[in-house]
Amino acid sequence: MSKIGFIGLGIMGSPMAGHLAAAGHTVTGFDLSEPAMAKLVEAGGQRAGGVTEAIAGAEVVITMLPQDEHVEAVTTEVIAAGGDGLLLIDMSTIRPETSIAVAESAARKGIRVLDAPVSGGEAGARNAALSIMVGGADEDFAEALPLFEALGKTIVHVGPHGAGQVVKAANQLVVGGIYALVSEAIVLLEAAGVDARAGLDVLAGGLAANRILDLKRESMIARDFRPGFRIDLHHKDMGIVQAAARQAGVSLPMAGLVAQLVAAARAMGHGSLDHSALLKVVETISGRA
Amino acid sequence: MSKIGFIGLGIMGSPMAGHLAAAGHTVTGFDLSEPAMAKLVEAGGQRAGGVTEAIAGAEVVITMLPQDEHVEAVTTEVIAAGGDGLLLIDMSTIRPETSIAVAESAARKGIRVLDAPVSGGEAGARNAALSIMVGGADEDFAEALPLFEALGKTIVHVGPHGAGQVVKAANQLVVGGIYALVSEAIVLLEAAGVDARAGLDVLAGGLAANRILDLKRESMIARDFRPGFRIDLHHKDMGIVQAAARQAGVSLPMAGLVAQLVAAARAMGHGSLDHSALLKVVETISGRA
Amino acid sequence: MSKIGFIGLGIMGSPMAGHLAAAGHTVTGFDLSEPAMAKLVEAGGQRAGGVTEAIAGAEVVITMLPQDEHVEAVTTEVIAAGGDGLLLIDMSTIRPETSIAVAESAARKGIRVLDAPVSGGEAGARNAALSIMVGGADEDFAEALPLFEALGKTIVHVGPHGAGQVVKAANQLVVGGIYALVSEAIVLLEAAGVDARAGLDVLAGGLAANRILDLKRESMIARDFRPGFRIDLHHKDMGIVQAAARQAGVSLPMAGLVAQLVAAARAMGHGSLDHSALLKVVETISGRA
Amino acid sequence: MSKIGFIGLGIMGSPMAGHLAAAGHTVTGFDLSEPAMAKLVEAGGQRAGGVTEAIAGAEVVITMLPQDEHVEAVTTEVIAAGGDGLLLIDMSTIRPETSIAVAESAARKGIRVLDAPVSGGEAGARNAALSIMVGGADEDFAEALPLFEALGKTIVHVGPHGAGQVVKAANQLVVGGIYALVSEAIVLLEAAGVDARAGLDVLAGGLAANRILDLKRESMIARDFRPGFRIDLHHKDMGIVQAAARQAGVSLPMAGLVAQLVAAARAMGHGSLDHSALLKVVETISGRA
Repeated sequence: MSKIGFIGLGIMGSPMAGHLAAAGHTVTGFDLSEPAMAKLVEAGGQRAGGVTEAIAGAEVVITMLPQDEHVEAVTTEVIAAGGDGLLLIDMSTIRPETSIAVAESAARKGIRVLDAPVSGGEAGARNAALSIMVGGADEDFAEALPLFEALGKTIVHVGPHGAGQVVKAANQLVVGGIYALVSEAIVLLEAAGVDARAGLDVLAGGLAANRILDLKRESMIARDFRPGFRIDLHHKDMGIVQAAARQAGVSLPMAGLVAQLVAAARAMGHGSLDHSALLKVVETISGRA
Repeated sequence: MSKIGFIGLGIMGSPMAGHLAAAGHTVTGFDLSEPAMAKLVEAGGQRAGGVTEAIAGAEVVITMLPQDEHVEAVTTEVIAAGGDGLLLIDMSTIRPETSIAVAESAARKGIRVLDAPVSGGEAGARNAALSIMVGGADEDFAEALPLFEALGKTIVHVGPHGAGQVVKAANQLVVGGIYALVSEAIVLLEAAGVDARAGLDVLAGGLAANRILDLKRESMIARDFRPGFRIDLHHKDMGIVQAAARQAGVSLPMAGLVAQLVAAARAMGHGSLDHSALLKVVETISGRA
Repeated sequence: MSKIGFIGLGIMGSPMAGHLAAAGHTVTGFDLSEPAMAKLVEAGGQRAGGVTEAIAGAEVVITMLPQDEHVEAVTTEVIAAGGDGLLLIDMSTIRPETSIAVAESAARKGIRVLDAPVSGGEAGARNAALSIMVGGADEDFAEALPLFEALGKTIVHVGPHGAGQVVKAANQLVVGGIYALVSEAIVLLEAAGVDARAGLDVLAGGLAANRILDLKRESMIARDFRPGFRIDLHHKDMGIVQAAARQAGVSLPMAGLVAQLVAAARAMGHGSLDHSALLKVVETISGRA
Repeated sequence: MSKIGFIGLGIMGSPMAGHLAAAGHTVTGFDLSEPAMAKLVEAGGQRAGGVTEAIAGAEVVITMLPQDEHVEAVTTEVIAAGGDGLLLIDMSTIRPETSIAVAESAARKGIRVLDAPVSGGEAGARNAALSIMVGGADEDFAEALPLFEALGKTIVHVGPHGAGQVVKAANQLVVGGIYALVSEAIVLLEAAGVDARAGLDVLAGGLAANRILDLKRESMIARDFRPGFRIDLHHKDMGIVQAAARQAGVSLPMAGLVAQLVAAARAMGHGSLDHSALLKVVETISGRA
């Protein structure tokens, strides 16, 4: 069993920290929200008054934070306070270059780092069914694996520092893109007077088949856009996709367009709806909203 | 059992006509290729000297032709020669507006029409495992259903005249788009130094899962672009997608971009490769070809 | 002075036929609209009861029609009725491939053809200030030049049959694209709290300078979208751009996107506004409409 | 006459600092390149051993640096060392949000800031013919105006802090977009067998007219891509455009596509060519490279 400092007890971090406590680890958490910390205590963990206190004596520190700047701030404090041999696992979704920079800073203090962003959303976090994409050294992955197994189902070591973030970015690109394609298919079918449900049934039976069509076509046809995964978060993630492409020196036209469609959904006021609300953008520009 | 005239015995039409003959129907075929007709005779059918001869006395005429102009020419001849009550099933992939125009012309002669494009490719045709998307009247669909069942597995009546073509267009849009997205994911992963196979395994396990990832990721990573379904054909189909969108009065930005990426693959000389060769376009513009 | 049959006396054709009559040519016109023909008679021309009557005895036939199908129908009649040596000048904006097909059909009857689409809009037609882009043989261009000089200012022989249409397509691509770019610039400036007028003044003084910025930035900032050149017509023209690209075997990503933005403007109900109303699309997807 | 500290004596900064010295100002410069400083001394300025030394006693500090991170580092040092009442003019092209953050930090020390990015390139800097887009307070702009007049011709105060960067971003979007459009026009014309020079002459005479067509069509047709303004720099600038759009909460589809085309030019190895080399991307994807 490990002694874990857990920073960031939000919608994702809270159930994750709870699973680790339930698995018998000693989990000391910190979050700016007092109720979030109370919830961790209920789940068998402990609260701390700040980052430095949360990680005091920890063998492993896990961070689950909203954006690059939070990760930069918190990991700076962790690196300053943390001792030689500490394993820092950042499970936030951020830019690959930030993950690499954190790993480099940490290495100077003898602190080892894994980037381990997840997919599967709130439901995945609650049900310990996340997909976890891990970047970093083999031996650090091996050490962290039992912890990951308390949190997720698909756990893959995909490469060196930053690789986890790149895979997460690729995932969000494909997910956002398929939402946009299915949205265009629905709008085309409906505008042409074709029954969308019957049409999508055909698509789902052939080479166009995909999980979004399986899980979401009914709700999309019904215009039920309750989240799920919010447009605001997908907008943030498309920014990471573009940063990752720029860093890797590649040209990704589909990513460029999907990013603008997601940005449109957000600008049009649908930021708190499910990412399937890309359909609303296609409807609007097709005069069918 | 029906008396069927079958026009167009190409890669798709040839096995389809064969299945109908094997099912006990009387099939008289015509094609400009003599070997194609010989093959039909081998399969139990009969050859005709021309369209009018092929459809003489037929209850059902099936056309399986490359492009709108061929369908227009052949159906004009069928409508001129065909009698009241004939059922004309066009299984070609063409523009919805062409299908509608054919149905309108035919109706003036008392000829009923179904548009019934297919997906599943050459393998689907050979194995009688096509998906068939049918537009037209209920009773005509009901009459044709036994014939369709000799040819395919997923058979759906999706709406009025042209609806089959619209669904086929939506299918090709989603298929082409997913190929483009998977191509961008592969290029991003590889350029960032991530193992593409491991990365795509994660994607295939989550919300990004899709049949193309299942069937084609190995061949794409290996750069094996043997067809399958050729870029040339997908290029033709993206033209139909754009025509269908224009006809329906909708704006489909993803369709616009996918069409240009497929056009690029063709212009770059990859027209006879599998449509997964969209990867070559993304590689080229990313300096990785 | 020439004996001219002029088919199509709409917003563009009417003043053009008038200029030719005013220049001393014998102009016999036909249009489905009786008032349009009355106007020609007022301007010194003559009315005819149909296409064949209009071109009887003509040395030159000019057509100015809305779309490919009208050109196909009228030129079929002209070719059937016209004699050896006739010069047929089609000034409609249509697909290059249609222009080439017309020229080929006509050649079999000894009829020579020029494609000569124009830009400059209604004002250009009224003021005999059109730009005229001409495709066809050198000697036919030379013969037609005096007629063109009665209609326009910039008159360029750009290549063989169809070349006039290709240049017109390139023109509409660039015009539509610059409207879209200026629209995005305005939305970005305004959303960022920058004075759009001051910002565009800077752009107009540097490498970004363009005629649309010169002529239209005031009206765009004021959201004055009175036509001018209607979105509906630009939508038709972007269809020609895409057909021309497909025919030429090239991939034009910007053209693909501009076509969808123009389609959006039309689908959103702005078809009868000026093409600068692309700004409304960008505003809408940016949540600023 | 002012006492000026000038940080960043590169291709742009060097002639700019020279013009200020020539105008009679006391200019103390710093750059990591010793030859750059020697050149300033030749031009009548003085060299400093570092940022802090360069700004000692200065009334005005001008920075002209490559990227956001350099501006952040240098302005941090300027703000630390600079006294109350100092005017800091950052003429670098960076993200609007960075400009705003610098202005906020500086304000806490009583230091006033203008963001004043330029366009016109190396030639504009040498000939004191830059366009200068200025964000900040009215009175600070008024104070800086005599300095700007020594450097440029079009000098516009466009709004509050960051507004200069937003206008520069809008400029680079429109410039990049027009290059892409002209590239597509050239490829379409040539592929269709039309004389590109004649075709572009027509475009330059109508609504499609723009400065890039005026200045660059000959060199583009001749495939002469000597810079001028390099693709690498335009790639950086398109990153700023996208950051500015994200910050302003707008969706800019054309910007998204232009960014990917410029990224393609760079990825394909054309980073050190002129930005007109976007033509090479369109040629490549059209199979004409």
